[in-house]
Amino acid sequence: MSESGDDAHPSGIPRPPTVKEVAERAGVSPMTVSRVFAGGANVRPELRTRVARAAAELGYRRNENARSLRPGHKSGLIGVTITNIANPYYAELQRGIEDAAAKANRRILVGNSNEDPALERQLVADFIGRRVEGLIVVPADPAHSEHLSPESVGTTPIVFASRPVPGLAVDTVLVDDVGGAYAATSRLLDEGHQRIAFLGTRTSVLTGQRRLQGYRTAHRDHNVPVYEHLVRTGQQEAAGAERALAELLAHEIAPTAVFSANNRNTLGAIRAIARFRSSVPADSPEVRLIGFDSFEFADLSPVPLSIVAHDPGALGRRAAELLLARIDHPTQTKSAQTVELPVELQLDPRAPE
Amino acid sequence: MSESGDDAHPSGIPRPPTVKEVAERAGVSPMTVSRVFAGGANVRPELRTRVARAAAELGYRRNENARSLRPGHKSGLIGVTITNIANPYYAELQRGIEDAAAKANRRILVGNSNEDPALERQLVADFIGRRVEGLIVVPADPAHSEHLSPESVGTTPIVFASRPVPGLAVDTVLVDDVGGAYAATSRLLDEGHQRIAFLGTRTSVLTGQRRLQGYRTAHRDHNVPVYEHLVRTGQQEAAGAERALAELLAHEIAPTAVFSANNRNTLGAIRAIARFRSSVPADSPEVRLIGFDSFEFADLSPVPLSIVAHDPGALGRRAAELLLARIDHPTQTKSAQTVELPVELQLDPRAPE
Repeated sequence: MSESGDDAHPSGIPRPPTVKEVAERAGVSPMTVSRVFAGGANVRPELRTRVARAAAELGYRRNENARSLRPGHKSGLIGVTITNIANPYYAELQRGIEDAAAKANRRILVGNSNEDPALERQLVADFIGRRVEGLIVVPADPAHSEHLSPESVGTTPIVFASRPVPGLAVDTVLVDDVGGAYAATSRLLDEGHQRIAFLGTRTSVLTGQRRLQGYRTAHRDHNVPVYEHLVRTGQQEAAGAERALAELLAHEIAPTAVFSANNRNTLGAIRAIARFRSSVPADSPEVRLIGFDSFEFADLSPVPLSIVAHDPGALGRRAAELLLARIDHPTQTKSAQTVELPVELQLDPRAPE
Repeated sequence: MSESGDDAHPSGIPRPPTVKEVAERAGVSPMTVSRVFAGGANVRPELRTRVARAAAELGYRRNENARSLRPGHKSGLIGVTITNIANPYYAELQRGIEDAAAKANRRILVGNSNEDPALERQLVADFIGRRVEGLIVVPADPAHSEHLSPESVGTTPIVFASRPVPGLAVDTVLVDDVGGAYAATSRLLDEGHQRIAFLGTRTSVLTGQRRLQGYRTAHRDHNVPVYEHLVRTGQQEAAGAERALAELLAHEIAPTAVFSANNRNTLGAIRAIARFRSSVPADSPEVRLIGFDSFEFADLSPVPLSIVAHDPGALGRRAAELLLARIDHPTQTKSAQTVELPVELQLDPRAPE
């Protein structure tokens, strides 16, 4: 804070004393000082405290940036762009990335692209400028991803998380979107539903496209036609999904079941169904709902809610592991791979047998 | 990726061509190139694309690290430690910090301390080593925060977000914990409740302590004694809160109302009340619940839920703004301030008049 020496260092950059000076003041070996500043593992707390105090008194700073400029030395940074950190799904994803990065002694630079490919391009250029060792990107829009191509990012390894970008030879970690949507839709068809609404995001988000594909394939395999007016895409937030489903429930050919393709659409669907239910006789049949994405409140939903569950934390960890493998073996020319993590259909206990 | 030139640059660090070379190749002025790499504001998209392509073809990299080493030059990084990014509250907080940081052309380094002060200490030491311009910390444990003192962080400005650390002269942004808890508890007392359970986190988390204080003060001002067996603290997650409240609801002196002091405890309380309700006659009186923290699902809660609402995104933005003011005026010796953001009691429409 300003009380604590800004005046002494108007430049904001103190003159860095040496590890040796810190070691002498703390009365320990330089090795111990290095160990403490590397995280302090296997250093007695009492020594850690002495070193920390001595370092603070001397204004010692380990200069990561300087180290990162030595030829071949790594910055220890991984750049991460996420499309909407306020969505709990992406918070879990980020946590998984950070857990794996920390294990490998890396830190993450995080930027929120807010689904905007132009902002994403700026973030990536900025991260590369900071010499990140690698990039993990949730692509905002596959149709505007030139800046994510191996050519554009040059020698910086990159991994796509949660969404693919067709045509780019980049390691990608996805969940089994198609299989999960297929299983959910098939379940509803097997229960005898013939009019199943689909609620999804913009189809430019390929995750949404893949889930719609699973929905369609399930209909085809069950020889049940898709009612196109029941397929509603483009809802990025819950409010839009609620409006879309409210319209469908009021339609003369209304759905008897709903497959919502992500947690935002599921939230909107729950609200629409709850409101609809209060407007019809109590003995009207329940509108069945299965939603893609784990859902903390599934057990509390006022309408029965089955879930296509998966683990965004595991997806983040896996993406980081793929990236670290590229970072640690830069000369290995292993071709890009796509990993699909499994999903699990979790039926609401209130759902029909 | 490995296909794209690792072999050409086994060190992972390409030889950087000059801005002038990029400008010539793109057929634009060096100034335009600089503007593009500064974010591209006021540069025609078509020029941006040409520059980006030329830069990619030449393997141009703006070297932030090198720039950050010039005396007086800033790294453009802000270090952020959060105690649990998987809690939606902190995801919103981070988003607020990042929004404000991006506006000031800064990036955030994010670390999850997982409520562990030792891990927090390592993150802070690492961030300072990377020459962050400032730190925003959600303190894991005020009793173990020596590493957060102005003396320890030296010339690096620091702001505490969401939790105070008594005794440290550090800018701090909080919500009105005491006032919010006081308003919620007073509301329940005014409704005639005499046995109000308190569900909270560890009291070593001062936010929890402050909210408990508001609960106690409201009782005192209403001349209603606190039933100490109804005060349950130490629940960091929903499952613990659910168990704690289930025990209380089975107690011979059971609560008729509950104040849950954060969103994790509220989630557990909703589950406990919902399960309890299904075990008693339908005409039994509803257990009243007011929870601290905004709650995306409040309107969908199977039990009426009133909320002490506040905006974690605004808290994050405010913390970043305080920090940026310190960064931009390092010689200003303005003493540390604590900002308390307002809260709003939002009553469930199902709540009594």
